[in-house]
Amino acid sequence: MRYFLVVVGLLMGSVISQPTAAVEYQSQQLQSKLLKETRQYLIALPEGYAQSTEAYPVVYLLDADEQFYHMASLLQFLSQGAMPQIPKMIIVGINNTERMRDYTPTHTLVLPSGKKGNPKYLQTGGAGRFLDFIEQELAPSIHSQLRTNGINVLVGHSFGGLVVMEALRTDRQLFSAYIAIDTSLWFDSPHYLTQLENRVDKGDFKQKQLFMAIANNPLSPGFGVSSYHRDLNLAFADKLTKSPPQGLSFAAKYYPDETHQSVSHIGLYDGIRHLFKDFAIDIYAETFSKQQVIDQYRLLSERFGLRVTPPQQYLEQLIQYSERQHLSDRKQSLESLKAYFAGVKSNEALR
Amino acid sequence: MRYFLVVVGLLMGSVISQPTAAVEYQSQQLQSKLLKETRQYLIALPEGYAQSTEAYPVVYLLDADEQFYHMASLLQFLSQGAMPQIPKMIIVGINNTERMRDYTPTHTLVLPSGKKGNPKYLQTGGAGRFLDFIEQELAPSIHSQLRTNGINVLVGHSFGGLVVMEALRTDRQLFSAYIAIDTSLWFDSPHYLTQLENRVDKGDFKQKQLFMAIANNPLSPGFGVSSYHRDLNLAFADKLTKSPPQGLSFAAKYYPDETHQSVSHIGLYDGIRHLFKDFAIDIYAETFSKQQVIDQYRLLSERFGLRVTPPQQYLEQLIQYSERQHLSDRKQSLESLKAYFAGVKSNEALR
Repeated sequence: MRYFLVVVGLLMGSVISQPTAAVEYQSQQLQSKLLKETRQYLIALPEGYAQSTEAYPVVYLLDADEQFYHMASLLQFLSQGAMPQIPKMIIVGINNTERMRDYTPTHTLVLPSGKKGNPKYLQTGGAGRFLDFIEQELAPSIHSQLRTNGINVLVGHSFGGLVVMEALRTDRQLFSAYIAIDTSLWFDSPHYLTQLENRVDKGDFKQKQLFMAIANNPLSPGFGVSSYHRDLNLAFADKLTKSPPQGLSFAAKYYPDETHQSVSHIGLYDGIRHLFKDFAIDIYAETFSKQQVIDQYRLLSERFGLRVTPPQQYLEQLIQYSERQHLSDRKQSLESLKAYFAGVKSNEALR
Repeated sequence: MRYFLVVVGLLMGSVISQPTAAVEYQSQQLQSKLLKETRQYLIALPEGYAQSTEAYPVVYLLDADEQFYHMASLLQFLSQGAMPQIPKMIIVGINNTERMRDYTPTHTLVLPSGKKGNPKYLQTGGAGRFLDFIEQELAPSIHSQLRTNGINVLVGHSFGGLVVMEALRTDRQLFSAYIAIDTSLWFDSPHYLTQLENRVDKGDFKQKQLFMAIANNPLSPGFGVSSYHRDLNLAFADKLTKSPPQGLSFAAKYYPDETHQSVSHIGLYDGIRHLFKDFAIDIYAETFSKQQVIDQYRLLSERFGLRVTPPQQYLEQLIQYSERQHLSDRKQSLESLKAYFAGVKSNEALR
């Protein structure tokens, strides 16, 4: 491949430079005592991390081997430029070893149709321990070495969505926001789904956010061509919409034109925009004022269950932008906001 | 930055591997006689290019410095896996030298408000020559060295959208499909927009496709906070929707929650999905049959103005998938389709 490109380059009269990376990331590993194995993960630091003193949210992406590249690139795009839509974040993608073990919350040997599952089903039921690994080994390692601000988001697709649901169900304190994309709710149905519904009925979620993306998936394992998988997702989302559990901020979106695979990009897009919907400061809004921004961030903080403040770097960017655009009143308000938020202790739990 | 990461790695007890790239691409350059300068561009080949004999569509991305990374990553995501939504494509991102010269179709020194533009306005009016460069120098170089299938898509955002509109207006034969994202239709308004509208009124487009993405942009150069820019886009899209010009397949989408900057990702997402909406073969559709797929690709071919066939590699992937899923009737139809399309001369102009 490399040879081929060099040849093309010479024929085209071109000079070939080194490929540069869209998202700069590193592969790292950790020896897990809980899982008794070495775990690989990918980590991308926000642009400008080394030059700043800011603390950042952390987003954990499951199924990193398949999902990290397009998801990290999307998160980077949405957080860059003068008018970002979401904060810059530390992105951690967790690679798989035994996916069937780590991504299933209960142990079962059968599919919901009653058919026997494949031999991998012998391993099922390890999602609790996998979440222990994230909470007790991976996250502490990241928090101790990098500047994190207490916001932790977990993103999972398909079986990864089950890990997300299990974290919500078992009140994992690490995460304050979840994105579950076309979750395999058919797994161990109806037993696991009943456990999940029971937890939801209990309410008392202490300020968590959940966004569900649901594809128009024509398949359900064990049933073949069947809307069983899709309909369980739609019904669960409907239940949460109609009877919102106390302390859980919930939203869902159904994608009639997306498949189980294709929904993972647009599901993250809409999910992350939704979770951070009060992040962007619109200096052109007619309602813009210092107080309006403070109120907006109070809403954002309530949803995350901890004090969220606009990054100082972001406010500085807006100040410089306002200066270039000769918006002196905006500039003045932003400077006042920057001073105000510099004095607010962020990261404080509101729960 | 690199040093910092190594330190983190050691503290975390991790082994740092080389960063790997989400999208593998190369920076190349070309000496342009038309522009009398060296032009840089980025090129990403489809996964598996070297191992295949397929010919691929080419998508040209303008403003590569800002747009290439997230756009190429998105195009790669949508074209991968067993059930891709769009074909694998050769992605060419063109870097800028004098953007104000190359991306403006007419010469003007003033903003539509009557205010004098900045000194860069002295350069305006070079989009025609820039399109000559793409048609006569860049594209021939790519076509002669790589396996291209005759489908060429041009994607531009902001001023880049003006280049797209100018290519459409001046009947550039190279491109059969266009994506114009939040186009700066305010530029040299009303003169340029009138030229564009006159061309549209003439019709006779010989099978072109245009998708317009429109943001809720609160700004218009020269007018400050004003919906002038947005409203010109909405009105032009409305005109094309209500009086579709002969030979132009048109669609537009308005994004109330996107800014001029943020719309470039989702605009490409919806645009490329729309252009290739008959590409994906849904083997689970109740209507699936050999004839239905042939009919579907006839529609796709008509929209592109040339014979489009499903890549043999894609059909082979579906055959293998059907075998794994024990869908013997699907497998048989797909094998028959593969043989059928192997005998169809693709790339033939239908205009």
